[in-house]
Amino acid sequence: MIIDSNAPIGVFDSGIGGLTVAREIMRNLPSEKIVYFGDTARLPYGSKSKDTIIRYSRQIVRFLQSRGVKAIVVACNTASALALDTLEKEIDIPIIGVVKPGARVAAQATESKRVGVIATEATIRSGLYTKLIQEIDPEISVIGKPCPLFVPLVEEGWRKDPITEMIARRYLEVLQEQDIDTLILGCTHYPLLRKLIGDIMGDKVRLVNPAYETSMVLKNLLADQHMENQGGIKEEFPYRFYVSDAAEKFKEFANSILPYDVERTKQINLEEYQEL
Amino acid sequence: MIIDSNAPIGVFDSGIGGLTVAREIMRNLPSEKIVYFGDTARLPYGSKSKDTIIRYSRQIVRFLQSRGVKAIVVACNTASALALDTLEKEIDIPIIGVVKPGARVAAQATESKRVGVIATEATIRSGLYTKLIQEIDPEISVIGKPCPLFVPLVEEGWRKDPITEMIARRYLEVLQEQDIDTLILGCTHYPLLRKLIGDIMGDKVRLVNPAYETSMVLKNLLADQHMENQGGIKEEFPYRFYVSDAAEKFKEFANSILPYDVERTKQINLEEYQEL
Repeated sequence: MIIDSNAPIGVFDSGIGGLTVAREIMRNLPSEKIVYFGDTARLPYGSKSKDTIIRYSRQIVRFLQSRGVKAIVVACNTASALALDTLEKEIDIPIIGVVKPGARVAAQATESKRVGVIATEATIRSGLYTKLIQEIDPEISVIGKPCPLFVPLVEEGWRKDPITEMIARRYLEVLQEQDIDTLILGCTHYPLLRKLIGDIMGDKVRLVNPAYETSMVLKNLLADQHMENQGGIKEEFPYRFYVSDAAEKFKEFANSILPYDVERTKQINLEEYQEL
Repeated sequence: MIIDSNAPIGVFDSGIGGLTVAREIMRNLPSEKIVYFGDTARLPYGSKSKDTIIRYSRQIVRFLQSRGVKAIVVACNTASALALDTLEKEIDIPIIGVVKPGARVAAQATESKRVGVIATEATIRSGLYTKLIQEIDPEISVIGKPCPLFVPLVEEGWRKDPITEMIARRYLEVLQEQDIDTLILGCTHYPLLRKLIGDIMGDKVRLVNPAYETSMVLKNLLADQHMENQGGIKEEFPYRFYVSDAAEKFKEFANSILPYDVERTKQINLEEYQEL
């Protein structure tokens, strides 16, 4: 098949968290256009089952393909952990997730061979971070800890709050006892708590944000396959945002974390994009 | 139309919270069968938009009708507040929500004419509790307070936890300052925090749980319309449970709060039940 290198990159997440990945792509691949989809009508994914996450992700992939994207970034740890394997067999454009890039960097970074992962329940339960890290180095121990309250705390606006600090201390205690030297922020909301998590874990623990690593993997992939956008960006709106629930709330949050004013956000009824 | 009085009652919620309403129906209408639906693949509703909540509720109503129910109880405050008005115009069997019964009892109970409501963001934003209470008595002041972390805290299993108490104290502070004498637990999860909320608000504040009141409204409605199940329950499984996501997790929670062993739970793909 012939891929139009001028086409946009599709990026999707269960909601707003994936904007932290879109932000890294904007920074590190400034010539690329983006079509972002946030499944705000059905979020969160982190507490749901594998079958449901695969079904939802398929619909989104189908929607992104209808927008002519040349490659897809699954900017959601839960969907990367549970649906990527299935999706990559079903489509003929490149698709990458955030878990593999994060796992690789963590495996390279650790010296104590003890890596921690904080993520949603579904991501931890999948065991994918552990599997991928141990494929690189079977001697690395991986300690996973689900932190289900982090997302609602961020969405409540309590990023800098003593209660959030207490909850973070409780969640992270088990990782502090395990002498890890590397900690993966395995949910796209967690980089928004980076400072707090860093303060609790201390200077000796390196925090890995898979968002940056993922943008680098995408950059190499586009170069290898000669898919980079050579023409540069000429459009007035190179970044387009779609959501499955009301666009207003999304826009507000997007504007608070993107170095860019999110003007045009459109609501889509995903149920019209049934399975492939 | 002819209604089969031997048919079950349909009860639905965004997830598990509505089981507190089903429990009251089981207690107070022991001759009635129930078909329960929990939209676990798309929960929570409380942070989503009116249009989305109407769309989801319509699909569920359509599913319950396909199961031959004789009446429907919207056992979710958010769906009652945002979708009930629309739904009752679209179907020809009786449908009731939890908001109206809760509002009526609170309006009757208050002496200070100051009522508090705690609920999801969407329910508070709808203003429906205020509207219904002031229709009964325009002199009553209604003070609403969204408590978005209560549901994730209950689902994290932290019902009796110092952190939950701190969060509850912060949420309820504004209501304590307002000298209310009646507080509506306006989300079906909140009765599970009843003791904590009662301890914080003190003896002088009456807590209203709309679940009980709703079961009484249903009882009167069935009697008025001669729709009571005269034959009693002969089936081995009079209570049937359907969910849109994995049934296992639901079953576990259901068994922890129902006076009944939830054996048979079935997963349904709601997208097959498109709008009426």
